[in-house]
Amino acid sequence: MGRDSRTVADLGELALIERIVGRLGGRPPPAEIWSGDDAAVLETTGRVLLTTDLMVEHVDFDLGYATGGDIGWKAIAVNASDLAAMGGSPGHAVATLALHPSTPVDTVDGITLGLAEAAERWSVALVGGDISSASELSIGVTMLGTIVERAPVLRSGARPGDALCVTGALGGAAGGLIALRAGLEGEAARRLGARQLRPRALVAEGAALARLGVTAMIDLSDGLAMDLGHLVDSSGVGCEVALEDVPVDGDLAWLAAQEGVVADPVLLALEGGEDFELLFTLDEALVGRAVRELGELGTAVTRIGTVTESARLMGGRDLEEWRRKGWEHLRGP
Amino acid sequence: MGRDSRTVADLGELALIERIVGRLGGRPPPAEIWSGDDAAVLETTGRVLLTTDLMVEHVDFDLGYATGGDIGWKAIAVNASDLAAMGGSPGHAVATLALHPSTPVDTVDGITLGLAEAAERWSVALVGGDISSASELSIGVTMLGTIVERAPVLRSGARPGDALCVTGALGGAAGGLIALRAGLEGEAARRLGARQLRPRALVAEGAALARLGVTAMIDLSDGLAMDLGHLVDSSGVGCEVALEDVPVDGDLAWLAAQEGVVADPVLLALEGGEDFELLFTLDEALVGRAVRELGELGTAVTRIGTVTESARLMGGRDLEEWRRKGWEHLRGP
Repeated sequence: MGRDSRTVADLGELALIERIVGRLGGRPPPAEIWSGDDAAVLETTGRVLLTTDLMVEHVDFDLGYATGGDIGWKAIAVNASDLAAMGGSPGHAVATLALHPSTPVDTVDGITLGLAEAAERWSVALVGGDISSASELSIGVTMLGTIVERAPVLRSGARPGDALCVTGALGGAAGGLIALRAGLEGEAARRLGARQLRPRALVAEGAALARLGVTAMIDLSDGLAMDLGHLVDSSGVGCEVALEDVPVDGDLAWLAAQEGVVADPVLLALEGGEDFELLFTLDEALVGRAVRELGELGTAVTRIGTVTESARLMGGRDLEEWRRKGWEHLRGP
Repeated sequence: MGRDSRTVADLGELALIERIVGRLGGRPPPAEIWSGDDAAVLETTGRVLLTTDLMVEHVDFDLGYATGGDIGWKAIAVNASDLAAMGGSPGHAVATLALHPSTPVDTVDGITLGLAEAAERWSVALVGGDISSASELSIGVTMLGTIVERAPVLRSGARPGDALCVTGALGGAAGGLIALRAGLEGEAARRLGARQLRPRALVAEGAALARLGVTAMIDLSDGLAMDLGHLVDSSGVGCEVALEDVPVDGDLAWLAAQEGVVADPVLLALEGGEDFELLFTLDEALVGRAVRELGELGTAVTRIGTVTESARLMGGRDLEEWRRKGWEHLRGP
């Protein structure tokens, strides 16, 4: 399929929807009805997970550095990550797309391809959506999921004495944003950019941790300081995190060394958002098993601290001090 | 609660979410978890309906004539209407809100109140959402519903010989938009404005029609010509509509008589969108029962034509000629 010089206004809403649905492909099972009627008809397990995320141009992404494919991918990934953090598995999703009439059809084709790639990656059925005209591009995805174990893993189950662990390494997505905005090149810049643009949802890892019996879990979308704050707030507990134990993305040292770039690797790891790693608490005796089982999935687990009764410390400082710097959408990063 | 002079940027995302959740009220049943975790946990019937609608400032509404309350109300109503048209009943919903940082907190309070009022009206549980910064206001709602009868009512079941019927009267919402934009005053203007700003979702009517065994149904969001086109396209049939039988909103004659206003009542009824009445087909022998049963709900039913084998006529003209004038978001009204 070649490039298309038309805009979405040239096509009109109905032709655009047909084009998107055709390119998404996928066929509903016999008992389901996807797009084309007033609502989709879906078979679910009875008890479902439901989450929604909205991404807006100039706030959550910029077409100066992100392709349509990146945007579509991320819209699915961030929702799948929310489900992963509940010990859930993605099922069905709908998407809303706000498009400027001058948006090239190529950009929408890219978004469609990104949606389709991520949907295939995490076994999501895209079953419908809505399109509106707008002055800036935005994409919203709402995703239904199923609970892998008998009960979902909440943010609120952490108990004093539990070990506090995190998957992967942190700060890469925030570092990627810096690298993309600065137009940096090279392998490290490319890896960091991918952390920002093509996040993974740790669905298999979340399910494995749920089976293992972790007591609380959250995905790192707002940054470690903010999301740890959410977890301890919900659980009514404290925490103690050793800064030197927080796994820092290996490419951030390179980033910090680039001329004209201001980037503190440790601060990015503590406060940078959108890594979509899993932060979880569990009985101390289970840490070794978590390391082994997620290791088999290719994902590192690092213990970064301990759940306490009430004091909330990260590197000896009050967690609140770090949280204030964290990402809040309406205030900017 | 008095007026609040702050903007959403003054509050920040987390405080704003807390404020909205607090004002929405509502308590989850014991087996459910609503906002406050990575995803909501919901009990459903196993087979569900899922629909989503996006409303964007300057395209779908304008704060020059619509209040926050109107916007919140309509975002729920249009989704409930989609479910009604499947013979479905609303259950749970999530909402996304894109807000300019300078948006007054009062406007968000209004949106919240409108969401809550409409959610109460149609028994919708608002269980979560997402907020992002943006340059213009938009609101997206995704709604889960249950199927009232064994099977949903699709657009695709119309059979040649079926009667073609519509609820209520048409064109009022499009007329209301004209009246609002022109700043018209008086009782008729107020009623028309309410048709545009505070649409009803005919949930009880849709359920009654599903029980009665209507063969196809769609809600009138894009206008009679467009939505009838969707229905006959899906069903692979034709239609013959008598213009003189199409029920025209009684306030449009007043509107057309206003100085400086260009409004053709019949054209508004045929092509105007957003009435959210139900268009349906059914065995001719059932029309009388449909009239009676919906009459008991206070809703008129009018037969406007017949389903045919293939010719698609409205007032003797090809339906395509009317459809081209219908609402398509990306091309404007």
